[in-house]
Amino acid sequence: MTKIKTAIIGGAGYTGGELLRLLIHHPHVEIAYVHSNSQKDKPITHSHPDLIGETELVFTDIVQTEGIQAVFLALPHGETKSFLDKNPFAEDTLIIDLSADFRDKSHGFVYGLPEINLEAIQNANKIANPGCFATGIQLALAPSIAKGWVKDAIHVSGITGSTGAGKKLADTSHFSYRTGNFSVYKLFTHQHLKEIKQTFKQLDPSFNQEVLFVPYRGNFTRGIWITAYFPFEGSEEEAVKAYQEFYKDAAFTFISSQDIDLKQAVNTNKCILHIQKEAGMLIIYSAIDNLLKGASGQAIQNLNIAIGLPQHTGLQLKSIAF
Amino acid sequence: MTKIKTAIIGGAGYTGGELLRLLIHHPHVEIAYVHSNSQKDKPITHSHPDLIGETELVFTDIVQTEGIQAVFLALPHGETKSFLDKNPFAEDTLIIDLSADFRDKSHGFVYGLPEINLEAIQNANKIANPGCFATGIQLALAPSIAKGWVKDAIHVSGITGSTGAGKKLADTSHFSYRTGNFSVYKLFTHQHLKEIKQTFKQLDPSFNQEVLFVPYRGNFTRGIWITAYFPFEGSEEEAVKAYQEFYKDAAFTFISSQDIDLKQAVNTNKCILHIQKEAGMLIIYSAIDNLLKGASGQAIQNLNIAIGLPQHTGLQLKSIAF
Amino acid sequence: MTKIKTAIIGGAGYTGGELLRLLIHHPHVEIAYVHSNSQKDKPITHSHPDLIGETELVFTDIVQTEGIQAVFLALPHGETKSFLDKNPFAEDTLIIDLSADFRDKSHGFVYGLPEINLEAIQNANKIANPGCFATGIQLALAPSIAKGWVKDAIHVSGITGSTGAGKKLADTSHFSYRTGNFSVYKLFTHQHLKEIKQTFKQLDPSFNQEVLFVPYRGNFTRGIWITAYFPFEGSEEEAVKAYQEFYKDAAFTFISSQDIDLKQAVNTNKCILHIQKEAGMLIIYSAIDNLLKGASGQAIQNLNIAIGLPQHTGLQLKSIAF
Amino acid sequence: MTKIKTAIIGGAGYTGGELLRLLIHHPHVEIAYVHSNSQKDKPITHSHPDLIGETELVFTDIVQTEGIQAVFLALPHGETKSFLDKNPFAEDTLIIDLSADFRDKSHGFVYGLPEINLEAIQNANKIANPGCFATGIQLALAPSIAKGWVKDAIHVSGITGSTGAGKKLADTSHFSYRTGNFSVYKLFTHQHLKEIKQTFKQLDPSFNQEVLFVPYRGNFTRGIWITAYFPFEGSEEEAVKAYQEFYKDAAFTFISSQDIDLKQAVNTNKCILHIQKEAGMLIIYSAIDNLLKGASGQAIQNLNIAIGLPQHTGLQLKSIAF
Repeated sequence: MTKIKTAIIGGAGYTGGELLRLLIHHPHVEIAYVHSNSQKDKPITHSHPDLIGETELVFTDIVQTEGIQAVFLALPHGETKSFLDKNPFAEDTLIIDLSADFRDKSHGFVYGLPEINLEAIQNANKIANPGCFATGIQLALAPSIAKGWVKDAIHVSGITGSTGAGKKLADTSHFSYRTGNFSVYKLFTHQHLKEIKQTFKQLDPSFNQEVLFVPYRGNFTRGIWITAYFPFEGSEEEAVKAYQEFYKDAAFTFISSQDIDLKQAVNTNKCILHIQKEAGMLIIYSAIDNLLKGASGQAIQNLNIAIGLPQHTGLQLKSIAF
Repeated sequence: MTKIKTAIIGGAGYTGGELLRLLIHHPHVEIAYVHSNSQKDKPITHSHPDLIGETELVFTDIVQTEGIQAVFLALPHGETKSFLDKNPFAEDTLIIDLSADFRDKSHGFVYGLPEINLEAIQNANKIANPGCFATGIQLALAPSIAKGWVKDAIHVSGITGSTGAGKKLADTSHFSYRTGNFSVYKLFTHQHLKEIKQTFKQLDPSFNQEVLFVPYRGNFTRGIWITAYFPFEGSEEEAVKAYQEFYKDAAFTFISSQDIDLKQAVNTNKCILHIQKEAGMLIIYSAIDNLLKGASGQAIQNLNIAIGLPQHTGLQLKSIAF
Repeated sequence: MTKIKTAIIGGAGYTGGELLRLLIHHPHVEIAYVHSNSQKDKPITHSHPDLIGETELVFTDIVQTEGIQAVFLALPHGETKSFLDKNPFAEDTLIIDLSADFRDKSHGFVYGLPEINLEAIQNANKIANPGCFATGIQLALAPSIAKGWVKDAIHVSGITGSTGAGKKLADTSHFSYRTGNFSVYKLFTHQHLKEIKQTFKQLDPSFNQEVLFVPYRGNFTRGIWITAYFPFEGSEEEAVKAYQEFYKDAAFTFISSQDIDLKQAVNTNKCILHIQKEAGMLIIYSAIDNLLKGASGQAIQNLNIAIGLPQHTGLQLKSIAF
Repeated sequence: MTKIKTAIIGGAGYTGGELLRLLIHHPHVEIAYVHSNSQKDKPITHSHPDLIGETELVFTDIVQTEGIQAVFLALPHGETKSFLDKNPFAEDTLIIDLSADFRDKSHGFVYGLPEINLEAIQNANKIANPGCFATGIQLALAPSIAKGWVKDAIHVSGITGSTGAGKKLADTSHFSYRTGNFSVYKLFTHQHLKEIKQTFKQLDPSFNQEVLFVPYRGNFTRGIWITAYFPFEGSEEEAVKAYQEFYKDAAFTFISSQDIDLKQAVNTNKCILHIQKEAGMLIIYSAIDNLLKGASGQAIQNLNIAIGLPQHTGLQLKSIAF
């Protein structure tokens, strides 16, 4: 198989960096160029110094569209549409957008959650990559929604690492503030609820329950932890079985029979789930790396699917473990 | 005022150490002795080296009961009763127990949550100091319970620092495991629910709702964060007003009109609350230091109340802030 | 004793906040006003929310000079002189400057390191408060310098918490960057070396050795750790004795006979030293809190000395311990 | 190429776990079995839950020697010799020992630092894998030693993550103690100095300088940072050039022209160096992951070399980056 000529737009940020870390060693990808206005003409190791010894690539501010077979867009939310208008890629260029701009499936984009939309992704040439919290929450709940088990409000608490807020400086990302600290934001109103509910409606058109989501800022850099629960009349065994069945072909989503913790998933493309029944509730925990399964890793998983490669290609990552 | 002759039983652990840090500079306390079987005859600065320059005290394994006006029991849960049986203090010795053993108000103990039981504590000579999670959750919810606002299940998520698990070594307190990590334990079954419900029944004998509590192990050493919510028909303003009224005489519990974060309360005896209405729910956040308002600080607050001192005495602590 | 009318200039930053945390409960201080241009008319709890329930003070942008008995200047380095030119305080107003601007003893300022300059501080009305690294390093080495023991280069490594870099946002203070990380800056050229050598010359006019200082950015918020060593022909006992003698009247500097760690000093005004002889070298470790003994705590210690109060007044702080 | 039948002895610990994480996806390795007495018959995902979905292997307590082409020994220091006596592997089995037991090159072991001993490793069937601090320090200094530049004592400070101390519980690995903390241990006497000096003697038989090494316990889980310096008469450019020449064929050791930080190397097999001249000293910084280049990663690098594979095989790891 020849290598796919691939471009990265917005290569200086966190998700751009993760794409680079993964694509440099992807056996079927050739990085044609990495775009960044701010870092133009600088080596990418200037922004991503951990890549020393792995690449001699230099950022460019020129967007070449011709001959590009796949392009990853890692632009700030809201800027993708105007970028694509200014830089029209060929009809058959695979576009994978990491922003929130097309997650409503507008403009012909497919919602890139492989566990739900595998077939659509196989046939897509425009993929909207899911949000990080959205990925963790949907994978925790999708089998229950599909089964029609949810007949009351779903209660969700989610904790995200600081990289979810990106590279830009902010008071809530100041080390002196965030270390040893804990806080809530966007209570019940997080923007990812929109794409979550869209998927739930797709799985069960009659779904109409509230998703009460408490998002926390965690005192760590990578990872998202989700706890979700709702009243459930079935047994734990029944639930575990249904989840195993639902995810039996999933490349990266696993149901653990042991208690889980966040670091099991950090620096991998996995989503690790654990299921419990207690006090009449079905509780599902999920752990992902917000920058991988929650962003750049899933983007490459989508690339693999869309171009017909095994989903694991370039994504068998060593977890941080400790 | 002469100084109260005070003993500390179990002075080598975390809560024992915090008692020492506070009592050494308490203007109306004289530490008669500090008991520890394991550290017998060693200077207390051996176990608590930060106290260098502040005390020359040495641990003893002899329990003197005579002449002791107040005694703090910082023994492992389950050991207090047999200790008191073996070492009977005088009727008028003030006993403040930090364990869970008498929080059911057995054996004449008063439940030492000053915001609820001020009068009883004023007249008590046996005080059962509340649990850390129990303190954070009760202070978040007491005014709502008292008002009779809770007519459905209460959803609570709580995150505790590692010091809540004490000095003993455990896999889940290993630095390599816990750093950058996050996990759940005792889902819906945390032992503090018992004392929480006991207080709620006291505030509203008809209270009969579920308290669904998700306890998390946080990636920090000190502090407890609580988020609690339930369906509420009133307005945010009404709720804020009721909470301000309820806590208007509280020495350490405050309602913040700003968003709060955990470190505001760390290394203080405060409980800082913030209140929000969203999606038909009343949401209350509370932040405390698990070793202070959640343990040793509250124990000294109880001492102050029981012996007729201003509640702040010896407890005007500088927060860690950063 | 009546209370000293005190002003804080630059009250919204980290050291300004620490001054407030301490002065609010200082028994002989009345805070006349807290100045901040950026926070004018906002409650100080807006910038320092942990102070809820302790103060109703509001920031002002008006500099009142009349009737002020003591003023703390917590302005950015380089701005103090022009501030004082614009706002001339009375001759007998005690000025304590936390910036680096007058640490060269210009304009009549005394260098405010109490362990060295006690008498001068007692008689001063202008005090230049030492730098944080400078405090840790000088207290580690002063007795050795005074004894004339140092006849070769001194090797120092020092690690600082993130609060040393202040409130402003910077790439090296980004939580995602700094967490779990470690790096060097200003190798051998740190600006504090100037005041360190000035003191060493004061203690021993013939002192002329190099101080090779490796400053590290640590992965914690508060504290400075110093390791210093140089060839030494005497014994460990001799050194310990000399240090104990040198610091026998010091209010906050202690020599520990046990191994020390940084957190013993965090959130206190202490400097904790430990001394070791190994491989022909005398090694001294010192641990301080960079914002307290390294800044605001020492400033208040200087205030106490200058106005004739016991040095501990308002400074008996509970360490964070964990 | 057929796959090498490989065994791991001591697979339940930290370095055993890292070996597993890497070998499972090594294209030329087949894991014959993973030995652990304590975890016998349990799935390896029980000890290493992050490996869910990647392996169905189960620990065994049976040591099979026949047919094993390569064996990794990840036993506690001091236990390897008696293990090998009890379990004699065939003459041509490649033995890679991660303990300190044969780093003195006894019993026919080659010291497995590829940057220095490449040829010997290519021909070895017994390899003693270097210590973590030893790797970081030797790679920082080897080119200078080889050039004969070091004519005075070398001053080294090194900071290690908590995983260097292994899985067992200890007071200094307690999360409540170590978080936000910093301390020294084994000052000037660290056991790795022995193998460091052995290599320096190999590079320059006349080398006879002191290596004054201050080892710190860092407040992070993974990584080792080294700062080393000594008087140097040449220029920075000359030094950089010599280092680039020395490491021009090194697979994982790189000289960065930018300032470096620890996390650039974390979760990779790289050693990243930076060189500076200041105050008459040549300063070299090095950053490695203590469990990878400092242990299991280097062990696999040695395997690759010994069996004739490209050094990168199975070791192109995504850094944690944040």
